[in-house]
Amino acid sequence: MRYYAGQEIDAGAEAVTAPRDVAVIVGSLRQGSFNRRMAQALAGLAPIGLGLEIVEIGELAHYNPDLETTPPAPWLAFRERITRAEAALFITPEYNRSMPGVLKNAIDVGSRPAGRSAWSGKPTAVISVSPGAMGGFGANQHLRQALGALNMPLLPHPEAYLGGAARLFDERGELTDESTRQFLSTFITAFSAWVELTAGTRR
Amino acid sequence: MRYYAGQEIDAGAEAVTAPRDVAVIVGSLRQGSFNRRMAQALAGLAPIGLGLEIVEIGELAHYNPDLETTPPAPWLAFRERITRAEAALFITPEYNRSMPGVLKNAIDVGSRPAGRSAWSGKPTAVISVSPGAMGGFGANQHLRQALGALNMPLLPHPEAYLGGAARLFDERGELTDESTRQFLSTFITAFSAWVELTAGTRR
Repeated sequence: MRYYAGQEIDAGAEAVTAPRDVAVIVGSLRQGSFNRRMAQALAGLAPIGLGLEIVEIGELAHYNPDLETTPPAPWLAFRERITRAEAALFITPEYNRSMPGVLKNAIDVGSRPAGRSAWSGKPTAVISVSPGAMGGFGANQHLRQALGALNMPLLPHPEAYLGGAARLFDERGELTDESTRQFLSTFITAFSAWVELTAGTRR
Repeated sequence: MRYYAGQEIDAGAEAVTAPRDVAVIVGSLRQGSFNRRMAQALAGLAPIGLGLEIVEIGELAHYNPDLETTPPAPWLAFRERITRAEAALFITPEYNRSMPGVLKNAIDVGSRPAGRSAWSGKPTAVISVSPGAMGGFGANQHLRQALGALNMPLLPHPEAYLGGAARLFDERGELTDESTRQFLSTFITAFSAWVELTAGTRR
């Protein structure tokens, strides 16, 4: 027997209100990435109406319009996955005062071919996570500029620039700081409301 | 017998004043890229003191700090090439109101490992080239922000936002518009003077 929001659900039947499918894009490929830990922490803090899943971007070939005649299989799978998602959440480090190339490449791949962007219309939000004091502000803002151009309704507030990332997690990847946990809970709850407001009819 | 600036040079001897070695980074991988044509046009317009060479970026794996234990060969070759250069010129399209992921990745790869950036101290300039009316302003400005953070003396003026790129070249890739040619000549001459001012002692 399965339950959802206190309501009994037939095992074979779809939940009346399945969680929103949120594609989480993590801007770092590093195995011990603070950004990946942040994605996992947020998945635990998300309201029941939001289902977070990391979508990997490390295998996407550099965008080259010439390849559109026979697109690489990972491009097609990524575009299909993003198209299927109801929202997208970006969690990014800052490299050289901007977003990492690998993250921008995923945005570029998902945005093409022209007129068939997988991103268009999906509600979105940005969190930047950095060991430094500025919390990845440069990366966050560059990313926001691109997301606006992609016609993605972007959570305006709260902004999330998380600095001092090396001190946020214990060795098991759990959040150590209660005020950070509170903030992230507020953030992901606001994002959930934003998705409901802007995503259109629930599937 | 070789001549340089009207002066006879011994075949075996180094030129008294060899052209400055400028690494040109082109932000598009497309074969018929307007940005690549622009690089070729600029090489033809450059003063004799500036030697432009395109450095390819399409084979650089996505930056991942975990790979630094055994860096991919193309990373090492790219870092070596940039380290050898006396200046760097960036020519970029705009993808989704920012620079292409592949270009940002080249910047990220060249900037690491920490404390050994190949870019540091190299004079630089940015040209954005776009079929649109805004001339790639968004990409240009994001790139400028990154280059400043990389400790690269950045040509402040003239700014170069070249729109309507589809009309700038004929079918052989030659510049068709005389005012554009004039502007580019002014630009690359200003860059040459900037390199002399900021690059330090000529090799």
